[in-house]
Amino acid sequence: MSTAAGAAPVRVALLGAGTVGSAVATRLVQRATAIEARVGAPVQLIGVGVRDLNRPRDLPPSARELLTDDIDGIAEQADLVVETMGGIEPARGLMERSLRRGTPVVTANKQVVARHGRGLIDAAADSGARLDYEAAVGGAVPVLRVVRESLAGDEITAMAGILNGSTNFILDMVERHHMPVGEAVRKAGELGYLEADPSEDLDGIDAAAKIVILARAAWGVDVAMEDVQIEGIAGLTDDDFEAARGTGHVIKLIASAWRTGSSRAPRVELAVRPVSLAAQHPMAQIREGRNVVEIEAESAGTVRLFGAGAGGDETASAVLGDIVSSARLLVAARSHG
Amino acid sequence: MSTAAGAAPVRVALLGAGTVGSAVATRLVQRATAIEARVGAPVQLIGVGVRDLNRPRDLPPSARELLTDDIDGIAEQADLVVETMGGIEPARGLMERSLRRGTPVVTANKQVVARHGRGLIDAAADSGARLDYEAAVGGAVPVLRVVRESLAGDEITAMAGILNGSTNFILDMVERHHMPVGEAVRKAGELGYLEADPSEDLDGIDAAAKIVILARAAWGVDVAMEDVQIEGIAGLTDDDFEAARGTGHVIKLIASAWRTGSSRAPRVELAVRPVSLAAQHPMAQIREGRNVVEIEAESAGTVRLFGAGAGGDETASAVLGDIVSSARLLVAARSHG
Repeated sequence: MSTAAGAAPVRVALLGAGTVGSAVATRLVQRATAIEARVGAPVQLIGVGVRDLNRPRDLPPSARELLTDDIDGIAEQADLVVETMGGIEPARGLMERSLRRGTPVVTANKQVVARHGRGLIDAAADSGARLDYEAAVGGAVPVLRVVRESLAGDEITAMAGILNGSTNFILDMVERHHMPVGEAVRKAGELGYLEADPSEDLDGIDAAAKIVILARAAWGVDVAMEDVQIEGIAGLTDDDFEAARGTGHVIKLIASAWRTGSSRAPRVELAVRPVSLAAQHPMAQIREGRNVVEIEAESAGTVRLFGAGAGGDETASAVLGDIVSSARLLVAARSHG
Repeated sequence: MSTAAGAAPVRVALLGAGTVGSAVATRLVQRATAIEARVGAPVQLIGVGVRDLNRPRDLPPSARELLTDDIDGIAEQADLVVETMGGIEPARGLMERSLRRGTPVVTANKQVVARHGRGLIDAAADSGARLDYEAAVGGAVPVLRVVRESLAGDEITAMAGILNGSTNFILDMVERHHMPVGEAVRKAGELGYLEADPSEDLDGIDAAAKIVILARAAWGVDVAMEDVQIEGIAGLTDDDFEAARGTGHVIKLIASAWRTGSSRAPRVELAVRPVSLAAQHPMAQIREGRNVVEIEAESAGTVRLFGAGAGGDETASAVLGDIVSSARLLVAARSHG
């Protein structure tokens, strides 16, 4: 926890200043002293790259001064690149170029990691730069770190969870407030709970992207979106909910992945589908936009992780955890170099 | 995930071969290929140090050949020391000497970390060697990694949990099987659920040690066992359980820690005591020997972690996760060096 007096700062380029990016910038400024103590050097924002300089941003003054549309320029000068732009391009290209230069990347971008993760992982492996993406799955639920590190000496056999907060919000409205499903979907849209393209949520695409990322982290297998058997909640009717309720069950959209074959030559099955759970089941009790993941491992048994699945500040917590981890390694590498 | 062909092994000395140590040795041998892939080098057991060579051990043949009572000798030759002996001495001295030499240490020893953690942390800080102790709190529940890394960019405000599986087993017997509390204590003893000195569990000492370790990790504060307000379950009577049941409540032994004062000058309150929880509360539903921890952080909100609180193989999972993390850093440092 001690800080070397006058240690050179870790220079961070933040790409994107939407809901998550603004929260990251705000907290980096607000918690600068604590973060410096934990990293062993100051973590210094050197630029906030945005595509539209005229859009209003919820940023502290010291971060507002760093706004620039030269996104590539600040990425090139950084010790650590933090990507919160969302979307595929230019985010993917910026991350790949940074990793190829040997600059570690922290990202919250589930689309890029799910669809182009292999290219990024290869770029990271080639240069030895670290790629972290905790915020891409489960918001503030620390599932990737648990899969990649806590259980790294164990063998994960299966994972299942509620990974899409928007559909869980809808299902919870139907279940607990006896709202017709069509009305619950409208309500979720009004409250900003659905993606710009609501089919990402309703058709299970978002949850599928997240289970792909988890499966790759757990088993090192090269799985893709096409490998997931996907059924969303769009086809569910009020009769389905009525029938479940009649037998003491609750319908939840469950993403799951399980290993078949041996640990040496793992094959993996992946699915996203509505599942009718007994009301007492721990996953049946997850409310509103929250997420949960259950991991089964040979030695550990069942590990269950629960937390906020979305939200700017909640997602920023995961991004900041990755920033501190990556910055610590940079500081350690300096002392070895 | 790629392995450099012929990378020099990370040489591990395992100190102790009781329930946890034997499980660690067995899994290290069994999972050697997967662990090598994850670390980037083979993780090689170079010795299994025990005080009594004649005691029967549940070890694979390749680990049995490495048994020795020259515990200091193997620790001195190792790249990584793994301590699973339990008790204060000689475990504490072995760990401190290893850390002072610059050798990273992984331990499952909650007594030493709770009572002598400051000395070990200082020794680690002086030499730059890493000290990991995930298995000391919550068995397979990955709470220390979440506190130290996932939430390292956040500010934890409070933690609460069921951290002693033995008392939870007793309370669960009373609650769900309507067993008189005296009989439940006897049953837990017969099943091997209680420590050699059952007052460690029943009087809340074990849970207090764990909340001290968590508080130190969360806030970097120098707290000790004496700072915990402790009330165990020994004073509870059948009437107490009857009264709780009558109002739809469940009694659980809850360890908690919360920050008072600012994040810059945190002061911390610590308590272990029986708490009457509404039956629907997530912590009220924790059964048998399982553990749960709820962490409140400024940005993340509530994060809840659940898993096996004890058991040889379950605890070994946490030790192995720390071994892989520490070994990865050793391999990374070699490539910098």
